[in-house]
Amino acid sequence: MPEKTRVTVNGYGVIGKRVADAVRAQPDMELVGVSDVISDYRIQTAVTLGIPVYASTPSAAVSMRESGLPVAGELHDLLDRTDVVVDCTPAKVGAENLAHYRDHGVKAILQGGERHDVTGHSFVAHANYATALGRDATRVVSCNTTATVRTLTALKAAGLLAKARGVLLRRATDPWESDHSGIMNTIVPEGSIPSHQGPDAQSVDPDLDVVTMAAKGSHTQNHMHFWTVELSRPSTRDEVLEALMAMPRIARVRRADGVVALNSTVELMRDLGRPRGDMYEVAVWEDILTVQGNELFYTYTVDNQAIVIPENIDAIRALAGTVADAAESIRRTDESLGVRRDFLSAPERAAAGR
Amino acid sequence: MPEKTRVTVNGYGVIGKRVADAVRAQPDMELVGVSDVISDYRIQTAVTLGIPVYASTPSAAVSMRESGLPVAGELHDLLDRTDVVVDCTPAKVGAENLAHYRDHGVKAILQGGERHDVTGHSFVAHANYATALGRDATRVVSCNTTATVRTLTALKAAGLLAKARGVLLRRATDPWESDHSGIMNTIVPEGSIPSHQGPDAQSVDPDLDVVTMAAKGSHTQNHMHFWTVELSRPSTRDEVLEALMAMPRIARVRRADGVVALNSTVELMRDLGRPRGDMYEVAVWEDILTVQGNELFYTYTVDNQAIVIPENIDAIRALAGTVADAAESIRRTDESLGVRRDFLSAPERAAAGR
Amino acid sequence: MPEKTRVTVNGYGVIGKRVADAVRAQPDMELVGVSDVISDYRIQTAVTLGIPVYASTPSAAVSMRESGLPVAGELHDLLDRTDVVVDCTPAKVGAENLAHYRDHGVKAILQGGERHDVTGHSFVAHANYATALGRDATRVVSCNTTATVRTLTALKAAGLLAKARGVLLRRATDPWESDHSGIMNTIVPEGSIPSHQGPDAQSVDPDLDVVTMAAKGSHTQNHMHFWTVELSRPSTRDEVLEALMAMPRIARVRRADGVVALNSTVELMRDLGRPRGDMYEVAVWEDILTVQGNELFYTYTVDNQAIVIPENIDAIRALAGTVADAAESIRRTDESLGVRRDFLSAPERAAAGR
Amino acid sequence: MPEKTRVTVNGYGVIGKRVADAVRAQPDMELVGVSDVISDYRIQTAVTLGIPVYASTPSAAVSMRESGLPVAGELHDLLDRTDVVVDCTPAKVGAENLAHYRDHGVKAILQGGERHDVTGHSFVAHANYATALGRDATRVVSCNTTATVRTLTALKAAGLLAKARGVLLRRATDPWESDHSGIMNTIVPEGSIPSHQGPDAQSVDPDLDVVTMAAKGSHTQNHMHFWTVELSRPSTRDEVLEALMAMPRIARVRRADGVVALNSTVELMRDLGRPRGDMYEVAVWEDILTVQGNELFYTYTVDNQAIVIPENIDAIRALAGTVADAAESIRRTDESLGVRRDFLSAPERAAAGR
Repeated sequence: MPEKTRVTVNGYGVIGKRVADAVRAQPDMELVGVSDVISDYRIQTAVTLGIPVYASTPSAAVSMRESGLPVAGELHDLLDRTDVVVDCTPAKVGAENLAHYRDHGVKAILQGGERHDVTGHSFVAHANYATALGRDATRVVSCNTTATVRTLTALKAAGLLAKARGVLLRRATDPWESDHSGIMNTIVPEGSIPSHQGPDAQSVDPDLDVVTMAAKGSHTQNHMHFWTVELSRPSTRDEVLEALMAMPRIARVRRADGVVALNSTVELMRDLGRPRGDMYEVAVWEDILTVQGNELFYTYTVDNQAIVIPENIDAIRALAGTVADAAESIRRTDESLGVRRDFLSAPERAAAGR
Repeated sequence: MPEKTRVTVNGYGVIGKRVADAVRAQPDMELVGVSDVISDYRIQTAVTLGIPVYASTPSAAVSMRESGLPVAGELHDLLDRTDVVVDCTPAKVGAENLAHYRDHGVKAILQGGERHDVTGHSFVAHANYATALGRDATRVVSCNTTATVRTLTALKAAGLLAKARGVLLRRATDPWESDHSGIMNTIVPEGSIPSHQGPDAQSVDPDLDVVTMAAKGSHTQNHMHFWTVELSRPSTRDEVLEALMAMPRIARVRRADGVVALNSTVELMRDLGRPRGDMYEVAVWEDILTVQGNELFYTYTVDNQAIVIPENIDAIRALAGTVADAAESIRRTDESLGVRRDFLSAPERAAAGR
Repeated sequence: MPEKTRVTVNGYGVIGKRVADAVRAQPDMELVGVSDVISDYRIQTAVTLGIPVYASTPSAAVSMRESGLPVAGELHDLLDRTDVVVDCTPAKVGAENLAHYRDHGVKAILQGGERHDVTGHSFVAHANYATALGRDATRVVSCNTTATVRTLTALKAAGLLAKARGVLLRRATDPWESDHSGIMNTIVPEGSIPSHQGPDAQSVDPDLDVVTMAAKGSHTQNHMHFWTVELSRPSTRDEVLEALMAMPRIARVRRADGVVALNSTVELMRDLGRPRGDMYEVAVWEDILTVQGNELFYTYTVDNQAIVIPENIDAIRALAGTVADAAESIRRTDESLGVRRDFLSAPERAAAGR
Repeated sequence: MPEKTRVTVNGYGVIGKRVADAVRAQPDMELVGVSDVISDYRIQTAVTLGIPVYASTPSAAVSMRESGLPVAGELHDLLDRTDVVVDCTPAKVGAENLAHYRDHGVKAILQGGERHDVTGHSFVAHANYATALGRDATRVVSCNTTATVRTLTALKAAGLLAKARGVLLRRATDPWESDHSGIMNTIVPEGSIPSHQGPDAQSVDPDLDVVTMAAKGSHTQNHMHFWTVELSRPSTRDEVLEALMAMPRIARVRRADGVVALNSTVELMRDLGRPRGDMYEVAVWEDILTVQGNELFYTYTVDNQAIVIPENIDAIRALAGTVADAAESIRRTDESLGVRRDFLSAPERAAAGR
């Protein structure tokens, strides 16, 4: 049996703790530790879960120990026993950390809050796994960009995409935040058009003709994207759905099943027993999607806390070079996380002629 | 001096009470009374304001009097002294009332909750005032449709419009509602594409090539529209702004002035002393609007409680036939309501070279 | 080995689906099926989880089968193989169902939406398990009442309670609801004082001197209670905490650990891997609780979706008569559900002198 | 005719702009100017309203002029022509400004964000106007404290108050804020009990036996207070209402009139034509208030943006010494602002026997 890839997660926040869970679910990986600078319940739960906790800085080591946390050491100790570090620190911090990782000869995955040119490579598994193979660093793009790339490259792969114009309604802050980050009873548009997500999608696939407008809504869970797509030729709803379903990590939902809003999908994930209620898939509304001649209109929802988790797992394999084939890595990841194409039982639906 | 047009408002709700205020502000109109079926604070305030209150039904007359309201009579009495009734009752009720109004020989304005074919005419002042002249009934289209028609016909009038694709983020319920109407911490998409607003805009101007997607957001004030427009030819930001400013009831706002969200415009209206904080104008973000070749992207906010108020006033004049010219009616209405093209003082801005 | 108690859950909603999960976690119980009248994702997930699904009415059997659901039969079939039914149907429906259950000789547990006199017994495990033993029906009181009884009887058991006056801030609607049930940007007070929760607590323990005021807040998760208690004698913070910790299903949380708001506890539950993010415990803020002479002030949060789940499990055992001792049933329930007295790791805290 | 008191408002924010409006409505006062450091729409509206705008600092003078604002001068120029300055700058800034005001020999009113000992006097008009007469500075207490003092001293004046225990649900941020200040889908309790409002009320009236708990709710408009009061003797609902109505700036609202929530009162104020929709009165729910023996339970709502405005106006007269009698100043202020004891028309109610 081959050795497991040793993974460290630096930054045990919204993304970091989910990556840690997902790494622990991979037979070919080992979570050697997580590292952070905080001392409160967010890191205490890692202790409760039995995860070795390290301090990202010397001063954090002091404050964390003073708080009673059983600190296993400092990040640099951990890096000496690490093959790949997944950096989930706040935006811009990852860029500063990269040199440090390189000093230790550790491969590094940064997140979408960093600029593309920090690593020179931006990652979405099915789109460009191959070009990440063996690199020493990549950047898993943001939740909005990941979702954008998934559906647009699905259309592109089917030869259907001419150009795409999207409106992205983002959640305002994360569900756990309780101060100084929310908006209330309003919508706040991005200050300029195009918003950064369109160009960011092009950092993964430069051929995409995509322009995005974005805004923040007064809710804390999930983004919602609305797309107006010019197709390369007149098509049909069935053909488009087939194209989307040919791409991993896109799942269908239906208003006819009572899934009528962002919070329906959140409840659905909890009903299905997903850890933390996470949804790794882009959930496209099958019965809202509409084709008119060569125009396609569709909408989907994105769990901003979870959608990049499978991408991070694949990125670990790509950098480590342990799996050469994108499809094989994606298959392993999705099986371990229970990723689905339809959240509700297909046999009965089929029997009912749907 | 010509006699004043005698106006009745049936339905003293969110729209009705604002129409009543606006009618009272017109020198060429007289508010003979308002009519409703409720007894609570919403109609008690009409009494406090000195407006004659009538009961829309015999049973309402009983319940309203029992509540201590000084009911001046029933709606049918009022109609005998009315030239034009503005029906602001809940959706579908207006359609039922129309025969009643016709029986009394009273001209009638319905609201956007009714279907186009109920009156056979759908009204936006600058777009089709002339065709409403002397009719016995018209329908002032909804807040979303009114805003859509204003900006798209502005582009059309300038020869710039090829086709428009919009995403409309609606407020979920009105600010005063406290039960059984709100949504919380979610976005709820319309069940089908196109949403009804596109076709509804075509009921005013059948030549518009427009498709809309819509959703409700978790906020109570103002809609926000995002448009992707294919222009008939490459253009510039300045040309587009000039086209929009050539149309009445469109005003510019700027992020550079701190107007960065829906609730900024609400506060701005209150700061300017607007009654109820109402904004009659479509507020287009001047510094978000972007032109790329022959594509235009822009966003604006719509005060769903107020935008149709000036249209209702113009519709009264059109039906009554007291003013033949759309521009003259619009001028009178806008002057009386203080409608502006820019909410902040232009001279200083000009001096600063903006 | 004794036979397992055969349990049916009628009503697979917010409470019903959680009771079903909890029953499946009990070694001494068997979930023979769930029953409902809906066909959408909420019941489809039961199929996905492998739970036998029944129709509560003949017409529901038709509509559910038409939707493609593999309906195992109707409720009356299920009742013939049931020892205890947990009725989680909407308020007032349970009362109508009770005669039906009795006709089948099935013992029944209703929920807090029903009136006390429907069953003549209102249940909170640690307070009155013994009086429910062998009864044919009981009512598990509501989330607010359950929390109220837990903490007040803890104070009473310690001889500390003179009288309690509470303000209960309820969540407005459940997280999954997306239409026609929310409130937005407001607080809605109950129409009368005392609100029903005080008298309802007395239906469990008539000796409690308790008055409550209540209101709904603009959030969807967790209630928050604020108590002003007159103690029977001057006391100390430590003595009060000891009294609370002597009662099951009360857990301490601390602002010092970053648990500073309702949504902190929601995140904490997810971090701990709780199914659906459920919190069965009343979470009392240890470092907000204050004693001044003979006055006690404290606040806690209640997961309205989960707090009654362990009580329902205990109520099953009490009605079935399979466990005579309240403490033994509570122990089994809490072990199976992972109920805790402190959510964060005690040893480290102790080491740190906290 | 006596000379008008010359008033400057430093800080043209939520409170400052309302004080400026109210000063302009007083026949015995002159608003000589407002001063601030911002350049955006919030101060541009002052220009639109014709108010002389000054810069609070030399650097602000530069940036404001660069933005095109017609800056009339700097604050120190303005102070030379000022009798009383109302400082509405952010919390803690007022304390720093006080020495500057004293250097110019200008009397100063600070707001509730400052500590009591900065001025040594905390002001609520009806409670301690006399002790502020001729002082060089006072502090108008916060919205929550003002409301607390109004109702509790009303009970005290009637000889009814023994002790009061309150739960104060605050709005989370102001309606205009769109970033970095909101909370979403949660309640955030104050970190300690008593919250600061109880002791703050004692800074106005040291005899009050009052303890408060406080929390922030997920809404932007109005606070809501719930009081449990031990009366000095058994009383009746009518006696308590009479005591409250004997105090200025307390108004009755009724659920029976459809005023059922915080946002009902906001709509009611707009319906009544109040500028900015402001409510200066504490709005007590007449039909929720309950007396049980010697216990009183009641709830009211507080417009946090407006309640202190009449107090600021009275404080100007007290410091200026132009009106010796509290009742006379309160009468003038309330008449100019249209303060009411009941928002709905009393005669009809009386006729209906209510």
